Amino acid sequence: MSVHVTGISGIPLIQKGDDLPAIICRNTTFEDGDILCIASTIVSKAKGYTRALADITPSPDAFRISGLTKEDPRFIQAILDSSTEIIQEYPFILSEVPCGHVGVRAGVDNSNIEGENIIILPKDPSAECREIRAAIKKITGKDVGVIVTDTCGRAFRRGQCGNAIGWAGMTAIRDFRGDHDLFGLELEITEEAVVDEIAAFSNFIMGESDNGIPAVKFSGCGTWKGHDSLFFTKEEDLIRKAMKR
Amino acid sequence: MSVHVTGISGIPLIQKGDDLPAIICRNTTFEDGDILCIASTIVSKAKGYTRALADITPSPDAFRISGLTKEDPRFIQAILDSSTEIIQEYPFILSEVPCGHVGVRAGVDNSNIEGENIIILPKDPSAECREIRAAIKKITGKDVGVIVTDTCGRAFRRGQCGNAIGWAGMTAIRDFRGDHDLFGLELEITEEAVVDEIAAFSNFIMGESDNGIPAVKFSGCGTWKGHDSLFFTKEEDLIRKAMKR
Repeated sequence: MSVHVTGISGIPLIQKGDDLPAIICRNTTFEDGDILCIASTIVSKAKGYTRALADITPSPDAFRISGLTKEDPRFIQAILDSSTEIIQEYPFILSEVPCGHVGVRAGVDNSNIEGENIIILPKDPSAECREIRAAIKKITGKDVGVIVTDTCGRAFRRGQCGNAIGWAGMTAIRDFRGDHDLFGLELEITEEAVVDEIAAFSNFIMGESDNGIPAVKFSGCGTWKGHDSLFFTKEEDLIRKAMKR
Repeated sequence: MSVHVTGISGIPLIQKGDDLPAIICRNTTFEDGDILCIASTIVSKAKGYTRALADITPSPDAFRISGLTKEDPRFIQAILDSSTEIIQEYPFILSEVPCGHVGVRAGVDNSNIEGENIIILPKDPSAECREIRAAIKKITGKDVGVIVTDTCGRAFRRGQCGNAIGWAGMTAIRDFRGDHDLFGLELEITEEAVVDEIAAFSNFIMGESDNGIPAVKFSGCGTWKGHDSLFFTKEEDLIRKAMKR
């Protein structure tokens, strides 16, 4: 298997109302089966999923947590507003967001945006992916998989990696159940989080800095069978249980 | 940036004593700056980092944990022997290994090996990478980065992903400290675990199954500045603290 991975350059600073699929299609070409990774930041900017700090009134909880983390209480309030469950408050808020993803500060981002504004994650990132996928199909006639990515820290390991928070045109998990290893034994490890593996490498291509590559195209990934249960439920998640204990 | 990622096919089943760098170089060509990801499994097989279950005498602790997990007590003993600290015993052992990596069952693997044998992780995976890197330089004259990978589960998310457990010819972390975002603000997220992002995508190319692609070549990744502190210390790791609480 051979895959070609291309950072899509030439994408301008995205503003609310911009037609993101059209802009991306002006800056690259697609073939059937390509996978497009897009940083959640530009999806949120195009859709206007941003907030002005001046418009946010912090709750008592936001002031209390702000006293711990030393962050702007309005920023904390935006995180609380974006969260369905707070797993940890300090030294940074770790919480679940509506799509099931667990992330630091609920993915609320105060970088790469002008003035006293913040970017919030799309509420339903997979719905955004389906919309972008349909738009690309309309523009190019090509069947392209779409992944929306965010960067996250990890347990046990330093540093951020790209993760998938939404996807369309593929399953999140490649499921090897029933497959056999090199010696014919049935595999014990049967679920591979392929959308996260693809998102991780797209983040390597994007970088975090001012190089402005918010979209990455993968050509040659092939297809797989699997399912979409990427996010653990509370009951399944041993680490989450330990942190809430 | 454009990266070409190639699964190296034609690698035979690896046996103890095989010259892995020579075998890999017979099945692909390298250019300066390429990065080679290798599944830890074949590094361990080539070096004989395997054990026969028949040779292992379980300790009382291994019998006790075996009663919880319902796994072979000799397999449990091998995990205990490979671990420097046990973080969790049940429903599966999660432990730290000598290089600082935290993994399920200490990376001890009973798949993809013949008979009643198990594969254990290299004790110093980065030393293996340096050795393979030097051998490739000797064979091809080319300066190639090397990453040894293993698959691991994650907090909050279902499914396995590839991770780096050793590396040479690059730093593990790309450090953006001092860099600025698109609007000139100094970046808050400054450390990106690039070796894990590359390892993750190499695992997508390898698959977990019987397709037998244990090595992947990345061409065009460029260079970065950073450091090698990939593994959290016990004191830094909030999740580990919560699990040991």
